[in-house]
This record gives sequence, structure tokens and C-alpha cells, in this order.
Amino acid sequence: MYTQTPRTTPSRSRERASYDADVVHAILDEALVCHLSFVVDGMPRVLPTLHVRIDDTLYVHASTGSRPLLLARSGGLPVSIAATLIDGLVLGRSQFHHSVNYRSVVAHGLATLVEEEAHKRAVLTALVEKVATGRAADSREPDAQELAKTAVLALPLVEVAAKVRTGGVVDEPEDYALPHWAGVIPLRVERGTPEPDEGVVGVPAYLS
Amino acid sequence: MYTQTPRTTPSRSRERASYDADVVHAILDEALVCHLSFVVDGMPRVLPTLHVRIDDTLYVHASTGSRPLLLARSGGLPVSIAATLIDGLVLGRSQFHHSVNYRSVVAHGLATLVEEEAHKRAVLTALVEKVATGRAADSREPDAQELAKTAVLALPLVEVAAKVRTGGVVDEPEDYALPHWAGVIPLRVERGTPEPDEGVVGVPAYLS
Repeated sequence: MYTQTPRTTPSRSRERASYDADVVHAILDEALVCHLSFVVDGMPRVLPTLHVRIDDTLYVHASTGSRPLLLARSGGLPVSIAATLIDGLVLGRSQFHHSVNYRSVVAHGLATLVEEEAHKRAVLTALVEKVATGRAADSREPDAQELAKTAVLALPLVEVAAKVRTGGVVDEPEDYALPHWAGVIPLRVERGTPEPDEGVVGVPAYLS
Repeated sequence: MYTQTPRTTPSRSRERASYDADVVHAILDEALVCHLSFVVDGMPRVLPTLHVRIDDTLYVHASTGSRPLLLARSGGLPVSIAATLIDGLVLGRSQFHHSVNYRSVVAHGLATLVEEEAHKRAVLTALVEKVATGRAADSREPDAQELAKTAVLALPLVEVAAKVRTGGVVDEPEDYALPHWAGVIPLRVERGTPEPDEGVVGVPAYLS
């Protein structure tokens, strides 16, 4: 269990919050992208990026020279990072009770640059393995120059919470008599058939 | 065309940036959620929320009492808002050239509260219509109390850009001889069969 803090206490729908590490980890592991937020000259910035979780640390991929990286170099960068999965559209009889089923995580803290080479390599391997288990072994590892061009930020998962809505429509009691359609439209991210690059034949077992 | 600014100039992969209004609008219209970033006591905050675009304004859904709302009440809230669509996983022969195909938009500016009732109603209708054209007519409009409980923030689309990666693998010339699989795994958000609420029969034409 993560410890609840003022920043991880929702201002509404508090019953949807979860501080359970398994819930938080599962969402972070399923989400392909996250949104990294930081402050530049007092103003908010947000950008999408790739992430991978290892144990209780969230790693985000960045490029040397990118804004958050330059800021993180000197002592760490305060960040807020969100990952969100949308599982369905909830259509209530009332417009007010239209909603979405979602699973999201927001983490807060000080992100620091991963400097040690073996550590950085382990994170990049994990990022590639997130695509499909077995992919790291079937690809060329980064050379020294590529490693230098890639940067990884680490955020310890300490101040973090999930927020989850599941289930069906919740309408006002008097609205159930209305003639409007109500229900849930499920949504999911579908992986299509892998499209081999020119000169590549077949699809390896770990991708199918 | 939107005007490029320092904040909307990527620090890398500048060739992927687009300031074309049609490109920006199409991404915002397709994305179901956005990530809203703002600053509280000098620290970054990010949260997922629902949005809808009308002409050159991006509206985000909020709740009265939520943090961004309270902040926006007094003269506007500086925000950075991102919407991201992931179209595919790009698997290069080298781990360094693993990537994703994506379409994202980031907008910056001062978000203000939509106060005027007719304006707020129009935005909420557009939010419901975003689920499916025809849905607003087949649902109960918000009453005065529901309207008061809902808040909408407006961000004029002025400082905004898209960033898009499409296409296949780009590997280093010498890596094409490697025996590793390379290609793209397409991803798309699939809408499943609508699941009617208890007592609801069938599925209306506008949802199928």
C-alpha cells in the first residue's frame, strides 16, 4: 500500500482512489504511454512519453537535450506523471451521468537522471521487453553512442495513487423510466497483425 | 496554421511537428481523453480528463470544487494540455530505433471558466455528441442543479502544435543485414458491442 497524501487524495469521487501497489503497478505496466508534467519558469508543461516500471520505480524515456532532461540534470526535476487506460464509454439516460470507465495512475515526486550505465541499460532493456517478452534478445543492444543519446529519468513510486471507474450506468432513480438507451460501450486497444519491414519474412513466436 | 512559438517547438524530431489546424483538430477530435497540467504552489500537477473541441477552442470537463477549477476561478489558470493517440509499435533491428507511431497535440495557454449558461450547455452537448452523433437527442439534458455541479474550462487554441510519427522502421544502414525481426505492430482503439443496461433492449442506429 502506498501512503495517501493531500496530492493523491482526489477532490471528487474519492471512492475510486486506490493506493494498492498491485493496482498501481498493473495500470502502469499496461499503459504504453504516460504524460509527464513539469514546470518551466513557473508555467506548466506536459508531454507524452514512454515509460516502464521496475519494482517501485517509474522510468520515463527522454532524450538528452530535451527540456525535462536538462532540468533534471541539476538535482532532480519535480514531476507529476499520469498514465490512463480507457475501458469503456458509459452512457447514462441523463447527460450528467455520461462517464467513462477508466484506470489511471498519477505519481508525484522528484525525477532524477539515471547515470550509471548498467542501470540505464537495464531500463532500456525493460522498455523493449514491454513491447513483447523476448524482444530484447531479438534486437541489437545500444552501442556507446546510442546509449549516450538516450536519457532515462527515474521517479520513485512513493506519492502515487490509482483512480478506477468500472461497471455500468448509474442514473438518478427517477430517470430509469426514461425511454433513452443506456449502457456501456467497451473500448480496448487492439494489436493488429505485425507488418514486417522490407526484406523481413514471417513473424516470431513472441509477437504472435 | 497556428503560429510556432518556443513552447511549441520540439527540442527534438522537429520534422514531426505540425502547426496545421486541420491536423491539430483531427487529433483532438479523435482522442477521448486529454491530460491537463497546471501548477499548484510551484509544483506540477497532471490529471486525465475529457475534452471536446469546438472551432478554435478546446474545452475540458471539470468538477466544481476540483483543484483546477478553483484556481481558474480567479482570472484564469495557466495550463498545458496534451492529447495522444498511439497508432503502432515500431520495432527496429536495433533497440535504439524502437519507437511508436503516434499523433499528439500539446496546447498551452490560459484556461478560463465557462460561466454563461447557454455556452456551457453547448459544450456539454458537444461532449455527449463526441461519444456518438445523435446521442444528445437520446438522453436527458442537465437540469439546473446538474449544470451547477459541472464545470467547463475553455482554452483558446492559439499556442498549439501537433507531433506525428508515421511509417515504418528506420534503422542504421549497417543494421539491415542483422537477422532480427523488424516491422510495425499496428494498434487501434476498438469499440466493442454496446452492452445495454438492465431493462434496456436493443442498440440504437447511431451507436452501431
